[in-house]
Amino acid sequence: MAHLHRTPLPVSEAVERVMQYKRTGGVDKVDLQESGGRILAEDIAATHAVPPFHKSPYDGFALASEDTMELSRDNPGTFRVIETVGAGHRASRPLQSGEAVRIMTGAEIPEGADCVAMFEICTTEEDAAGRQIMTLKRKMDAGQNIIIKGSETEQGDVLVPKGSKINPGVQALLATFGYSTVMVYNKPTVGVFATGTELLEVDEPLVPGKIRNSNAYMIQAQLERSGAACTYLGKLDDDFDSCYEAVYNALGKFDLLITTGGVSVGDYDLMPDIYEKLEAEVLFNKVAMRPGSVTTVAEYGGKLLYGLSGNPSACYVGCELFVHPILQHFMGNTRPYHTRVKAVLGEDFKKANPFTRFVRGKVDYEEGKIVVYPAGMDKSAVVTSLAHTDVFIVLRGGTRGYSQGDMVEAVLLEDQKGQTKF
Amino acid sequence: MAHLHRTPLPVSEAVERVMQYKRTGGVDKVDLQESGGRILAEDIAATHAVPPFHKSPYDGFALASEDTMELSRDNPGTFRVIETVGAGHRASRPLQSGEAVRIMTGAEIPEGADCVAMFEICTTEEDAAGRQIMTLKRKMDAGQNIIIKGSETEQGDVLVPKGSKINPGVQALLATFGYSTVMVYNKPTVGVFATGTELLEVDEPLVPGKIRNSNAYMIQAQLERSGAACTYLGKLDDDFDSCYEAVYNALGKFDLLITTGGVSVGDYDLMPDIYEKLEAEVLFNKVAMRPGSVTTVAEYGGKLLYGLSGNPSACYVGCELFVHPILQHFMGNTRPYHTRVKAVLGEDFKKANPFTRFVRGKVDYEEGKIVVYPAGMDKSAVVTSLAHTDVFIVLRGGTRGYSQGDMVEAVLLEDQKGQTKF
Repeated sequence: MAHLHRTPLPVSEAVERVMQYKRTGGVDKVDLQESGGRILAEDIAATHAVPPFHKSPYDGFALASEDTMELSRDNPGTFRVIETVGAGHRASRPLQSGEAVRIMTGAEIPEGADCVAMFEICTTEEDAAGRQIMTLKRKMDAGQNIIIKGSETEQGDVLVPKGSKINPGVQALLATFGYSTVMVYNKPTVGVFATGTELLEVDEPLVPGKIRNSNAYMIQAQLERSGAACTYLGKLDDDFDSCYEAVYNALGKFDLLITTGGVSVGDYDLMPDIYEKLEAEVLFNKVAMRPGSVTTVAEYGGKLLYGLSGNPSACYVGCELFVHPILQHFMGNTRPYHTRVKAVLGEDFKKANPFTRFVRGKVDYEEGKIVVYPAGMDKSAVVTSLAHTDVFIVLRGGTRGYSQGDMVEAVLLEDQKGQTKF
Repeated sequence: MAHLHRTPLPVSEAVERVMQYKRTGGVDKVDLQESGGRILAEDIAATHAVPPFHKSPYDGFALASEDTMELSRDNPGTFRVIETVGAGHRASRPLQSGEAVRIMTGAEIPEGADCVAMFEICTTEEDAAGRQIMTLKRKMDAGQNIIIKGSETEQGDVLVPKGSKINPGVQALLATFGYSTVMVYNKPTVGVFATGTELLEVDEPLVPGKIRNSNAYMIQAQLERSGAACTYLGKLDDDFDSCYEAVYNALGKFDLLITTGGVSVGDYDLMPDIYEKLEAEVLFNKVAMRPGSVTTVAEYGGKLLYGLSGNPSACYVGCELFVHPILQHFMGNTRPYHTRVKAVLGEDFKKANPFTRFVRGKVDYEEGKIVVYPAGMDKSAVVTSLAHTDVFIVLRGGTRGYSQGDMVEAVLLEDQKGQTKF
């Protein structure tokens, strides 16, 4: 009962307190093919110009524009086709006036040529000696149909800065510039304990008074979605000493530790006493929000120890608000917070809000606008609506409810963009 | 030169032709913990009511509301606290008039009780005999602070239909209902060949006239983002027979096969002849779009054989438009197409569009609106802008260009929602 009168902390202040203990993890070299979704620990710079040589964007004939100055439909010109250059090959000698080189898409423009006439505007025939002759009926400009060396990027340009997420386009760049391996930030390791005598494991039959442990699986999935490597350490039992021992030992083995349940004011809520015995610094143990007001975060030896609620929805929200940005920062993401947007509320939400409410919802896009809908029952103990959740609808406290069409804030849980501030 | 005059097919018609050959893959049982991101191959139904019993949402005292009818600040009532019930435990006997049970959050409401008075409104003391007495100064309603059995969901309700993607919330539900394993659709297997004499592998030094193979890595990353299991089969060489052989053999080993490059009209573009020798049905070999107009899809023995452009941007676009929905459908996703939204164009795009243009862009959210910006140079051979791409801006053909503020269509590449139609 000693913990009954906790002072609720505003959410943004709670996030700020947690982020005071943010740290960035180590880096490691991974193969290009394994790098998807990781965060770059080095700037990716162009190791050469792109394209690395003057290049043909089409199949056609490379020639000197000077040779075409007088050409027209009524005054066609002929060119000796001296060779064919496919992509990956080079002309054997510079081209001279009156000559053309048959050239394929992606091939290097031969010396002496400064334009490419596409096949479509050329005709070819063989002369008496069996040599190929190409006829052109129009004037070409210098540089026409040539991709100039370095026109896309110059050598040395930083194309993707450290701290960016590696997507398929970044992987294309890495390959282009010869990065068969790349430096990325390590994944944070997270240990998860569940607490609660009422919890059965997923493969145990249901018995009266008990429920199955859904938080452990849910939170592992959330942590993995946030990029962490997660280990489920099982249930803590009711005995204080063995419970303390287990938490103490785990703290040394992981970058951060999470417990679900046991942070409220009930007789069997052991976590507050564990923080006390550890002499951990409790950053907060009550947050001015629904659900998840009992969310507790403590710091011990520079590591964060999260006490998330045992209620599924409250646990889910606590994880996304307070754990996600710490994980993203650990992985070097310079935009560690979930993307927040203004959105239109798709239906009434008339419940009064003593505290800021994070309603689990679904995002939709309608006529260029972002519209958000509550995903189902909005109670902290509810688990079913989480299956349909990809957004938190943020309803500020102190109002009498919200109406369809109101502009609200929304936290996008599946968006990859992120943002620099909460 | 036989392929010069191809008839361009509208994009939507091309997608439709491809989707005529869609098929759904087999299913497999996976562990709950491995199921994240997979697609459900079974409906998830409630195997029991939630909650499975009347339950306390708070720490407090369970009692009969009837006993409180007359209570007020001036007329407090006292109750004998007969036992304490923690979550996961049950009362040892039904409660009688004048009795209360000390009850913890999540615990089952004892028989005979129909409300819970929170700790905050109760006082407790011991009587002379050392028995606990609780004092209450207000009237309670029947059902107050009780979560009724089945109030969240009834047994048998389908909560997540087959064909849905498994997210952390779905995993919480699976755990709740005792699914330690779950049926999911298999991942499609995709083989990828690159073609092009100009291509160096990523770890080879750059030499004149050549470029490194970026498409193979890019497309593997795209395919994995789309959920496939991808195998890079290396470069096809220039010799037609060995090339044919390699393609023919690979067709038997994968659910679908992709080649990059070699589909244009150049002298070394072998793919059209391979389709011919296979007697594969070419669904189309020219699409009315930029980039990627040479994108070719053929069908052989019920399997799709994609000939994507060798130009990075064109290859990227072809993969997302024509491969992604086939992969998603194979995995049982009932919303296999990328989410399309209306969006505001964030800057001018003045280039004329002979065909529909899929501009690689970045999405942003501004004041509740979706705003899209071109990611960089809009040429099919460009690779650098792909690193910043998370959307295609769809600019319809036949116009003279678009201005900042115009409403345009956008294809969201990283959105998880998807849609049922192209």
